[in-house]
Amino acid sequence: MEKIPPRTVARLIIYRKILNSLIYEGVSHIFSRKLAEMAGCTPEQVRRDLMAIGYQGSTVSGYDVSELEYSIGYVMDDPEGVKIAIVGGGLLGRAILDYCYWRYPNFSTFLSFSNEKDISDKVYHGCKCYTMKQIEEVLEMETVDIVILAIESEHVQNLANRLVKSGVIGILNYTPIHLDLPSEVFVEDMDLMLAIDKAAFFVKHETHIKKKKKKKK
Amino acid sequence: MEKIPPRTVARLIIYRKILNSLIYEGVSHIFSRKLAEMAGCTPEQVRRDLMAIGYQGSTVSGYDVSELEYSIGYVMDDPEGVKIAIVGGGLLGRAILDYCYWRYPNFSTFLSFSNEKDISDKVYHGCKCYTMKQIEEVLEMETVDIVILAIESEHVQNLANRLVKSGVIGILNYTPIHLDLPSEVFVEDMDLMLAIDKAAFFVKHETHIKKKKKKKK
Repeated sequence: MEKIPPRTVARLIIYRKILNSLIYEGVSHIFSRKLAEMAGCTPEQVRRDLMAIGYQGSTVSGYDVSELEYSIGYVMDDPEGVKIAIVGGGLLGRAILDYCYWRYPNFSTFLSFSNEKDISDKVYHGCKCYTMKQIEEVLEMETVDIVILAIESEHVQNLANRLVKSGVIGILNYTPIHLDLPSEVFVEDMDLMLAIDKAAFFVKHETHIKKKKKKKK
Repeated sequence: MEKIPPRTVARLIIYRKILNSLIYEGVSHIFSRKLAEMAGCTPEQVRRDLMAIGYQGSTVSGYDVSELEYSIGYVMDDPEGVKIAIVGGGLLGRAILDYCYWRYPNFSTFLSFSNEKDISDKVYHGCKCYTMKQIEEVLEMETVDIVILAIESEHVQNLANRLVKSGVIGILNYTPIHLDLPSEVFVEDMDLMLAIDKAAFFVKHETHIKKKKKKKK
């Protein structure tokens, strides 16, 4: 298959999430117009994105929800599963581990690195737990696709450098530190502060618009 | 000031995060070239974005890191602060509350809604805690700018409808459910599954490229 552009990938993931919600609600078919409305894009974009993965709907009944969800998964998912390591055994690290455990029961392997003495050296939700010091040693033996950074530490950049040196090329960064890493490493900023700042700005702006509108009346 | 385009806002927030990391490291000045490299955009974009908020650096020493951080904050932040409500008192809800508490000490007011009996009806980190049933009653009395959804529940759409009906126009959605809400409501999808799927795809693709390169040798 041809290379899928990053923005198409991002939209496919959103379509899939919507489709999963629809399956849950018992909806069997959906038209591109409705899917586009729910995903915040245009029907043409939906049709183009789905053509890119070789999927076409029926003009009479629209897309088959389960079939389409399967098709997107077929393109997106690695049959070998995703191997995830979580760094951080605090509230957030444990919340993420809980979340992953219920969402990816047969899909992935998990490792956890932590300095919390009550977690290290145990198996939690089938996830092997190690101390931070063991990172290099463990990554030498196990292939990890994505590392989730959920720590409260000043040495995040240093830690990220160690991970990249050990071959990690995918990082989800929940820390407030901006990571300076080689461009071939995929880093997604999951920092709550970024999201709050963005939401706050738009909410403020929306309020501002409303106030203006009210004044105009 | 003129309306700032959403993509500029998103970049300004990232610049600010980088500047905060630099302040922490004791860096006093930065050139647009380096800032662009760290933010993953072009130097021209950095200069244009900062011109949009009326800030210009020196060609000799670059941007003053603290001054620029202040200028971005001046444009972005509401002097009245951001009022945040967190729905969900599980591990994730508490992790978010802990995070916010340390990050926004004098900046915001927090409310927490939860069905967990040990949290409801208490004050935790200066945050007033209520039960989910009280949402309408509390939002009638208190203005909330952003609601963070950190629940594990099947009724998230219904809950989001209740929030929007009570006047909420900013939602950070940590649930795996895709919310179908009016377009004037700002919704940011914080779902970990979306991020894992995206990271997994790019990591897989990157691996694929490397394998191809190796074969070519």
